[in-house]
Amino acid sequence: MELYQEAIEKHRQLGGKLETVSKMSVETSADLSLAYTPGVAGVCEAIHKDPKLASELTLKKNTVAVLTDGSAVLGLGNIGPEAALPVMEGKAILFKKYAGIDAFPICLNTQDTDEIIKTARLLAPTFAGINLEDISAPRCFEIEDALQDLGIPVFHDDQHGTAIVVLAALLNAAKISGKNISDLEVVINGAGAAGVSIVNLLQNMNVEGEAPLGVKNIIVCDTKGIINQSRNDINNNPAKQILAQKTNKDQKSGSLRDALLGSDVFIGVSVGNLLTEAMIQSMNAEPIIFALANPIPEIMPELAKAAGASVVATGRSDFANQVNNVLAFPGIFRGALDAKAPIVSHSMKIAAARAIAGCVSDLSADLIIPNALDTSVGQRVGEEVARAFEKEKVPVL
Amino acid sequence: MELYQEAIEKHRQLGGKLETVSKMSVETSADLSLAYTPGVAGVCEAIHKDPKLASELTLKKNTVAVLTDGSAVLGLGNIGPEAALPVMEGKAILFKKYAGIDAFPICLNTQDTDEIIKTARLLAPTFAGINLEDISAPRCFEIEDALQDLGIPVFHDDQHGTAIVVLAALLNAAKISGKNISDLEVVINGAGAAGVSIVNLLQNMNVEGEAPLGVKNIIVCDTKGIINQSRNDINNNPAKQILAQKTNKDQKSGSLRDALLGSDVFIGVSVGNLLTEAMIQSMNAEPIIFALANPIPEIMPELAKAAGASVVATGRSDFANQVNNVLAFPGIFRGALDAKAPIVSHSMKIAAARAIAGCVSDLSADLIIPNALDTSVGQRVGEEVARAFEKEKVPVL
Repeated sequence: MELYQEAIEKHRQLGGKLETVSKMSVETSADLSLAYTPGVAGVCEAIHKDPKLASELTLKKNTVAVLTDGSAVLGLGNIGPEAALPVMEGKAILFKKYAGIDAFPICLNTQDTDEIIKTARLLAPTFAGINLEDISAPRCFEIEDALQDLGIPVFHDDQHGTAIVVLAALLNAAKISGKNISDLEVVINGAGAAGVSIVNLLQNMNVEGEAPLGVKNIIVCDTKGIINQSRNDINNNPAKQILAQKTNKDQKSGSLRDALLGSDVFIGVSVGNLLTEAMIQSMNAEPIIFALANPIPEIMPELAKAAGASVVATGRSDFANQVNNVLAFPGIFRGALDAKAPIVSHSMKIAAARAIAGCVSDLSADLIIPNALDTSVGQRVGEEVARAFEKEKVPVL
Repeated sequence: MELYQEAIEKHRQLGGKLETVSKMSVETSADLSLAYTPGVAGVCEAIHKDPKLASELTLKKNTVAVLTDGSAVLGLGNIGPEAALPVMEGKAILFKKYAGIDAFPICLNTQDTDEIIKTARLLAPTFAGINLEDISAPRCFEIEDALQDLGIPVFHDDQHGTAIVVLAALLNAAKISGKNISDLEVVINGAGAAGVSIVNLLQNMNVEGEAPLGVKNIIVCDTKGIINQSRNDINNNPAKQILAQKTNKDQKSGSLRDALLGSDVFIGVSVGNLLTEAMIQSMNAEPIIFALANPIPEIMPELAKAAGASVVATGRSDFANQVNNVLAFPGIFRGALDAKAPIVSHSMKIAAARAIAGCVSDLSADLIIPNALDTSVGQRVGEEVARAFEKEKVPVL
């Protein structure tokens, strides 16, 4: 593939994508004595007296770890920590570009859940937050859950980043289709990291003070078909067992084809070319199709439209409506860091989705989400995420 | 202290000293597809096939971890990982300034030797080398030793950085004094990280192909006096037991005062104001005094000179002959990285010391080491260190 070769050459020429740069001049002896000894001892002493000052006087103020074990990298699978580095570096430069956040890749030489949790805890003093990345399900759930008491936000982007942008896209798609979002019959194909988080967000879009508002009817399919409580093969997968309880109100069974019959929305976080025109035609009028598999979508947009789809989104930049995590994670960490939030809470995620949806002014079937290159989104998302955290802190009277 | 306040304000104003910056433009969709998906997958696949390519195509090529547990920071002692951050950040910017190396602080929330070793192993995929920093003795010895099989250089700067610059200074001081370095009677005051490594380097200055050449007579003192094999109080300190065997040929006992009687060189890596003029007057003619305690030297240079010292060095930038690690560690890692050396070997350390000594052209009593601000030293040291590694790789015929 020509693009691959070009990317390799570019990476070789630059020797990687990320560098560390001093913000302080060190030209003179006086400079040195401020940045390093003896002056730096004053900064150390101040932090020793009040450890919170590390978040004001050091890189901890604005630096996030992009942490992986290389077990589920892009669509490439378990390629290990070294081979994951180019993605983590890429993520780090997007953090800087879209939210002014310094980020640094940490690719761990272990895929043991407990070791990853332990190491994240040991690394915490240096960082203002940890973006977990490309860790395979179901370990990613356990790792993220275990680290919520760390005192800095720990956020698994493959789960929530995708889910937040999907919710943003669905808010706008529903608006265009004139449908009430909570009444939509939604089918999610893919029960991995993203699928699980999409269910959580869609079912709980209400924030405090609002009436309950969430999608009531969701069916999730995995490679074996519809997930329900009769499925014995999911006994060892707690995440899928929870899905079986939380979704599929009528406990339907069968294939993806059966699930889609009479539904309004297809959300694919699975693999390419498995959605057919006939399946789309079996859905309700004006169906919404999010075919997010990369690089080959579950169905190509032109086929989906020919089959009657009213709105189509994919994960690709060369089609309209690209669902791209970069719309979410930079702003989410910007907001969390600015607000000094110790976690990324559910409300902060919902606020991010709404902020992303709100960034689109000329809503149309081909414009339900902002362009991934729009660097203004990160700031707006950051402001709303910080506001959501501040609101949560204040007890509702 | 006014300097401390100024340093705190400067750090606050900048929000720390180190930032991460992209080397690749991400302005257009085409840029994004090279730096991130989909193009980056080609880079990942290439590294997955050949993990060594990580050192060509990613930040692993040129990035060093500055790793500490905050247990022995400057003269401040055990102030913990957050309070150590300003020093590690400072070190990182010196790496960049003096050797073009990207470096990143890793301040661990543990002081357990095994956990630190384990974590360094888990972090290795991201880094080209690990600079251990400000870890208290004797744990620092064990940690560095245990990590020598990691495949990337692991180097404890407080030990070897100081020792290398001391050797460089001593090579030139001996030249000025017209003394044969291997015949010098040397007293080292301080048996911590630096003291132990100074003994190793001074006793083994020979490199392959050369006649044995090392300082034959070294006595080490700690706070209890001269270290010898009769000292029962060092039974639980393996590093001091080894010193008792390797040094003090005549197994002298007594105080620092006793040790100095009739010696040629005093090397202080201890605390301020413990060397008296009378002690210097009890040494041989034209004694060499390295009073390296910071910020207050073991004796002030003017007093040492008045007492008859021929050459005086300190750790301070406001006196002549500053023994500053920055002359060593950037070039050592530059050379190790350029040569793709898996360790910093003894020969590489000796080569670094000789290179530093060789950077002084107008040798005089007040100029035995290059100025710490001289950024050309790093490159020269790097070249000699890389050459030393290449030479070791070639079997001697």
